Amino acid sequence: MTAAVLQATPGIMSPLTAGELEARLRDIGARRYHRLHPFHHLLHGGKCTKGQVQAWALNRYYYQAMIPQKDANLIARCDDSELRREWRSRLVDHDGEEGREGGVARWLKLTDGVGLDRDYVVSLRGLLPATRFAVDAYVHFVREKTLLEAIASSLTELFSPAIINERIDGMLKNYDFGSADTLAYFAKRPPLAQRDSDFALDHVKRNAKTPDAQQTVLKALEFKCDVLWSMLDALHHAYVTPKHIPPGAFVPNE
Amino acid sequence: MTAAVLQATPGIMSPLTAGELEARLRDIGARRYHRLHPFHHLLHGGKCTKGQVQAWALNRYYYQAMIPQKDANLIARCDDSELRREWRSRLVDHDGEEGREGGVARWLKLTDGVGLDRDYVVSLRGLLPATRFAVDAYVHFVREKTLLEAIASSLTELFSPAIINERIDGMLKNYDFGSADTLAYFAKRPPLAQRDSDFALDHVKRNAKTPDAQQTVLKALEFKCDVLWSMLDALHHAYVTPKHIPPGAFVPNE
Repeated sequence: MTAAVLQATPGIMSPLTAGELEARLRDIGARRYHRLHPFHHLLHGGKCTKGQVQAWALNRYYYQAMIPQKDANLIARCDDSELRREWRSRLVDHDGEEGREGGVARWLKLTDGVGLDRDYVVSLRGLLPATRFAVDAYVHFVREKTLLEAIASSLTELFSPAIINERIDGMLKNYDFGSADTLAYFAKRPPLAQRDSDFALDHVKRNAKTPDAQQTVLKALEFKCDVLWSMLDALHHAYVTPKHIPPGAFVPNE
Repeated sequence: MTAAVLQATPGIMSPLTAGELEARLRDIGARRYHRLHPFHHLLHGGKCTKGQVQAWALNRYYYQAMIPQKDANLIARCDDSELRREWRSRLVDHDGEEGREGGVARWLKLTDGVGLDRDYVVSLRGLLPATRFAVDAYVHFVREKTLLEAIASSLTELFSPAIINERIDGMLKNYDFGSADTLAYFAKRPPLAQRDSDFALDHVKRNAKTPDAQQTVLKALEFKCDVLWSMLDALHHAYVTPKHIPPGAFVPNE
């Protein structure tokens, strides 16, 4: 962790321009996105054991599985038909449609590829409790905060194309399960993430005009960075030596 | 962690007697209560630095502060006046009344005693995100699950007198801030915890009669053990060497 990571996001006294707001949002990503997390470096640098990759894929599955419910919660509280229709494309991407597999199904190809039993993955029996609490916090955030904050919390997608490219490169190179088929999830995501985050960023820039609103937008993105970071913290604590696997969670067979 | 800790709680095929149900609940405590957590051993064995004790008191403050809201959520969904009246005593214990300080105020004497600024503690600025997610998961659980599950999730109080006595002994002996005043919270809790857990245990034994209901009761207690355990996991990961303090969280001055 660098000193820069610890630096608090400064408060806002007078309204930021749309460009300044975007710069602040991107600055949060540069300081707090989970690409900076030690577990990300281990994973994509080929330093993880098979068991650690399994634990990551298993826990991250819960995040993937809950994203459509998160998005449906957002749509459910939105009284703007155009916005609902735009956001609906996220449901299609994750849940799929006739003749087109969705992101959740593609994630299960990854968990298959790393040797996890699919029924076990889907049962969530081996999930770290901290993963469940973090992901559920995200769903509750989207259900309970303002629509503007709910949309702003999706903005980690601004930073995901870079991390996904690192994942594809690192996984194809370093692990024997890295094939085009098991990694299909990652290959498909970047253009979708780009489209979704362009839309959400534009919405936030057009709708967050007061210092208070802009502050809630920045806080929402920090919150979401905390969700992703704490998921990797939990994995690191449980599965990187010295391991501290909590009661009931997945125990790698190694 | 011992093999016993990892053992899954067995399913229920036919109804348990009230005594068998109680034995299963106590067995969960014996295997999964946070008294078994390495951070508890460090803390109460006098092996923590001042900064680690501060981090523990600061993070645990959020749990204390949210307990009355958790209890109010339970009362809010309860249509039995007698049960509401009984449960109301928990609000009194935690929030206090004219001439009688509550548990939350007593906890702040502890955070004072360990040298934390009270405004900083109450602001929650330095909280570990994982603490917030775990505590909020508890509040949401009580709001969203059945009343029986909400009541059963309070049953960790069955096991708290023992851990509290270890805390008092360990803290008076090992840390220079351990005084009767700073530790007043712990001195007051055991009889209240005993009264509350007697009530909740009796309620659960009288109301959980089918295998399905009994299973949900056991799962609710496991869930609550997971909440407490994951709070100590987060502290351990962040503040025990090698430290991994997440962005924005409390950094001890040492």
